[in-house]
Amino acid sequence: MKRFEKHIFVCENKRPEGHPRGCCSEKNSVQVKELLKRRIKELGLNTTVRVNSAGCLDACEYGVTVVVYPEQIWYGKVNVDDVEEIIQMHIVKNIPVERLQIKDEKFNRNEIKI
Amino acid sequence: MKRFEKHIFVCENKRPEGHPRGCCSEKNSVQVKELLKRRIKELGLNTTVRVNSAGCLDACEYGVTVVVYPEQIWYGKVNVDDVEEIIQMHIVKNIPVERLQIKDEKFNRNEIKI
Repeated sequence: MKRFEKHIFVCENKRPEGHPRGCCSEKNSVQVKELLKRRIKELGLNTTVRVNSAGCLDACEYGVTVVVYPEQIWYGKVNVDDVEEIIQMHIVKNIPVERLQIKDEKFNRNEIKI
Repeated sequence: MKRFEKHIFVCENKRPEGHPRGCCSEKNSVQVKELLKRRIKELGLNTTVRVNSAGCLDACEYGVTVVVYPEQIWYGKVNVDDVEEIIQMHIVKNIPVERLQIKDEKFNRNEIKI
C-alpha cells in the first residue's frame, strides 16, 4: 500500500471575473473541498485518503473539477450535493460515479477498471 | 491513455513563521513548481504532463514535497537543482529518482515497479 489509497485533488484556481474560461473558485470549489475533507475525517478515512486543493487542472469549462488518483478519474461540475455520492461510491466502494465524470473523452478515455 | 501520463503536484502550503512542522513555501516550493512547469513546456511535454501546485500534502518535515501520479512516488527536500533530474529520469525515462524519494517507509512502501 502506498501513502494514500485515494488522493483527491480539487481545483481552486481563481481567474479574474469575466474570464471566458471561468474558473473553479467562482463555482464554490472551496466549499466542495472543505466538505470532502470534513466527511473523510468524520468517516475515519483520513489516514488513507487525502483531500487537497490544487492549482488550475486545465478543465476550467467543466469546473468544479475534481481528479481522484491513483486511477485518475476526472469529475466535472461537482457541487456540494455530489460530495456524499463520490465518497460513498468511489472512495468507500471503489466504484467511480459515472454520472459526474467529465464526458470529454480526453479526460476519461480508456478507463482503467478498478 | 488518460488525460495526463504524469501528474506532478508540488506542495505550496504556507504556515506561520516558526511553526514546528515548517512548510514547503518557506523552502522555495513556488520556485520548484515554476521551474518544473517551464522545463516541461520547453521540452514539449505539456500536453501529456501536468505540473500543479497543491495544498498541504502532510509531509511538511520532508518539504519541499513533490508527488508524482499515477505511480504515487513521493519526493522530499526537492530544490530547484533537482528539477532536471526528476524530469530527465522520471518523466522522460520513467525511472523514479531513488535518491530524492522520501525515506520514511509510509511514503514509498511496496513500491510499484513502473
